[in-house]
Amino acid sequence: MSGEHHTIELDLPRLTAGYKNGSFTPSGVVETIFDRIAERGDDGVWISLVGRDSALTRARQLEGLPPAVRASLPLWGVPFSVKDCIDVVGLPTTSACPDFSYVAEESSPSVERLLAAGAILIGKTNMDQFATGLVGVRSPYGVARNAFNADYIPGGSSSGAAVSVAAGLVSLALGTDTGGSGRVPAAFNNVVGLKPTRGLISRIGTVSACRSIETISVFALTVPDAQAAFDVIRDFDRRDPFSRAVPLAPLDKTIRGFRFGVPRPQHLDFFGDAGAAKLFDHAVRRLEDLGGIRVDVDFAPFLEINDMLFRGPWLAERYGALKEFLDSRDSSVLPVTRDILLGGARITGADVFAGQQRLKLLKREINDLWRDIDVLVVPTTGTIYKNSELEADPVNLNTRTGTYTTFVNLADLSAVAVPSGFLPNGLPQGVTVIGPAFADNNVAWLADKFHRSSELPLGARVVRYLDKSQNSETRTELVT
Amino acid sequence: MSGEHHTIELDLPRLTAGYKNGSFTPSGVVETIFDRIAERGDDGVWISLVGRDSALTRARQLEGLPPAVRASLPLWGVPFSVKDCIDVVGLPTTSACPDFSYVAEESSPSVERLLAAGAILIGKTNMDQFATGLVGVRSPYGVARNAFNADYIPGGSSSGAAVSVAAGLVSLALGTDTGGSGRVPAAFNNVVGLKPTRGLISRIGTVSACRSIETISVFALTVPDAQAAFDVIRDFDRRDPFSRAVPLAPLDKTIRGFRFGVPRPQHLDFFGDAGAAKLFDHAVRRLEDLGGIRVDVDFAPFLEINDMLFRGPWLAERYGALKEFLDSRDSSVLPVTRDILLGGARITGADVFAGQQRLKLLKREINDLWRDIDVLVVPTTGTIYKNSELEADPVNLNTRTGTYTTFVNLADLSAVAVPSGFLPNGLPQGVTVIGPAFADNNVAWLADKFHRSSELPLGARVVRYLDKSQNSETRTELVT
Repeated sequence: MSGEHHTIELDLPRLTAGYKNGSFTPSGVVETIFDRIAERGDDGVWISLVGRDSALTRARQLEGLPPAVRASLPLWGVPFSVKDCIDVVGLPTTSACPDFSYVAEESSPSVERLLAAGAILIGKTNMDQFATGLVGVRSPYGVARNAFNADYIPGGSSSGAAVSVAAGLVSLALGTDTGGSGRVPAAFNNVVGLKPTRGLISRIGTVSACRSIETISVFALTVPDAQAAFDVIRDFDRRDPFSRAVPLAPLDKTIRGFRFGVPRPQHLDFFGDAGAAKLFDHAVRRLEDLGGIRVDVDFAPFLEINDMLFRGPWLAERYGALKEFLDSRDSSVLPVTRDILLGGARITGADVFAGQQRLKLLKREINDLWRDIDVLVVPTTGTIYKNSELEADPVNLNTRTGTYTTFVNLADLSAVAVPSGFLPNGLPQGVTVIGPAFADNNVAWLADKFHRSSELPLGARVVRYLDKSQNSETRTELVT
Repeated sequence: MSGEHHTIELDLPRLTAGYKNGSFTPSGVVETIFDRIAERGDDGVWISLVGRDSALTRARQLEGLPPAVRASLPLWGVPFSVKDCIDVVGLPTTSACPDFSYVAEESSPSVERLLAAGAILIGKTNMDQFATGLVGVRSPYGVARNAFNADYIPGGSSSGAAVSVAAGLVSLALGTDTGGSGRVPAAFNNVVGLKPTRGLISRIGTVSACRSIETISVFALTVPDAQAAFDVIRDFDRRDPFSRAVPLAPLDKTIRGFRFGVPRPQHLDFFGDAGAAKLFDHAVRRLEDLGGIRVDVDFAPFLEINDMLFRGPWLAERYGALKEFLDSRDSSVLPVTRDILLGGARITGADVFAGQQRLKLLKREINDLWRDIDVLVVPTTGTIYKNSELEADPVNLNTRTGTYTTFVNLADLSAVAVPSGFLPNGLPQGVTVIGPAFADNNVAWLADKFHRSSELPLGARVVRYLDKSQNSETRTELVT
């Protein structure tokens, strides 16, 4: 095992600086990563790995490129993971369902683009089966171990993706987000989850959840790192029915005097977690300290939209995408997942049209909000549960976990989830900055300001962290 | 009965000129119209009339306005009719189903706006029940008599609307258009049918067909007349879920060198009607004579979309809008209409999402077309059938009738149907000029150029018409 790996940190500034000043090489980073993976043992993060030799071959190939070519590759030597519902040529795509598995004949465009930019694939990550869940415990491949405490859920559905970043196994992770899958596990593992406006990243070569509203998402240690990947993988794809050729809104940097909406107190539910409520209060105060003006907003339309996705008409889209498999192989699917998906079979066409019509009016209310606020800021989750709690109440606690994430996709919004601090139990929590469609850059810019102001450690590779706002030492184990 | 009524023609230029030069007054026009209605007897055009006295009161009220106010009213003294699925305060709305009838407590915004612009309501027109049909024979209120030959269908679903204009009973008629209801009856009665881009006219106070794609439409004797009404009734309405606050594309007048698409010959089906084929050939040549360049286009994506509306997922929207009534009162509905609507109950939510996804790709193909052509020109209908033929085969002949109209709404296009000439049997046929969403003004401008170039008589109030292109005299009875 390499002795250097405790000094290698995978956020892009430190990784790139290390490459530039010769402290380490892509091969060395790959060795370190596979050492860490080996040390972690059965951590539930991966469904498949490319293998040390294969990754080393790739690293050496990158090292052999002429300097000018190397300089032209924005992600040269950057390790990344891919959620296992996204195709990588030659590897199985399982969507966390072994019987569904197929070996991909082509890579999804976002994977191709990361590789073309010089990134190094490490492996494919665990997830809630068929991306149905926000908890990370609905997988026959085990539970991806929460980077801070294995008793707690990692969040999902992109569980392995978030942990792979938090644990220092990759710099970037491709996930997906249909109702929070790209944000909840970010919050539970102290990393950043960037959920782009839908339609900006091709979904060709991915397993469907709800095609009309899902998106590929990015996990990283910082917002700029996530944006670096987003910039590489963003493109119109005419084969993707829901791809949109719309430019992003220009960046409008006005931190002083920006107005941020917060759900009215009666709508802010932390499900009894006083620590989480306190953390959110601190986050709001910090935004005010940064120059923001808090505006209380009516959260009712957002809550109504939540119900449409997980309990309402859009379940039919989720069911329809997997109908053939479910109808012929339903014993291959986890009972909790199967029950949810089959609920979609009972939804009529008339229900869908009625829901879409209602959604139009709710979106109109939400669109009006952007006159009064620049962004909406919510806790990414109300609280975090233990694995054992999920076992006892798998559906309700999952639904609760999506309170502040689910509506984003149906309402056609952009969002970035960033860490906001640690609970007394040592588990991280986060906030999500939300803006209208195509405001991705503005949302990310503000989310980054907030994240930097927290002075939180990145990911889970920290020994001690002093929470100044709570004037108490809150900390976790070293993961590797 | 007034002796003047044979000299009153209701196209806006002649009507307005008559008002200006004192040849007649609104009261005189109202008298004439009610005389004509009385003379026609049981013509199946109306479901309810406002009554001569009531219309006369309205006319006198308009006559009593100060000149400055009168001059500010763009439709001062213009008589109009309203399809009976659109609310007029105090009158029943039946949607051609007596048991569904209710007395409206408010007028639909388009009715209010026409009245506010000085127009005079004459009555509410017959239609295919629940706007389900393109033939005009599916009504318990009888068949609106085709303005040229009572043996033939009037077209629908806005049957009474089109005939009310053709027969000189109104200048303007509000109809609706979900798959051709605003165009087919225009073609069959030698009038103009303007089908705006959807979302530009409020549907508050109207009975739903397919809310997401339907629109109120306008019938008139000329394109500029229809546009005059469209300009008055067009507005964003936030209560209407599908209302769109998008400005129309600017008018781009380039008749010379404009490229018009025509379906490739193998897709042009006139269902054995050689006369209709010949008329369409003449229409294409006339467009070329006007300076247009014909471009043959692949009609397959349009035909695929046709099937989605009348036989596919969108039936569920039509069913859903009437579900409660159908489930409790199905014997109140005509058997043919009931069978069609209940077909929508069998469509699943998954079907709808799959259809919407497929539609996205087809729309992308159609959007690409606008690089090669400025407008698409199609025969409005392939042929016209007799009432007796419809009785023998009510569903297939209805579907055929929509071959060139149905796709327009699902594909989110704008269209204007204009007369193109007469068949050897004396029945009129038309063409439809189609453009992308929000190109309404450009489409109308070209449709008007074409219509003017035809030198056809307006509506059905003509004694003789010599078809120069066919070098034969083709004509009809005088209607009043």
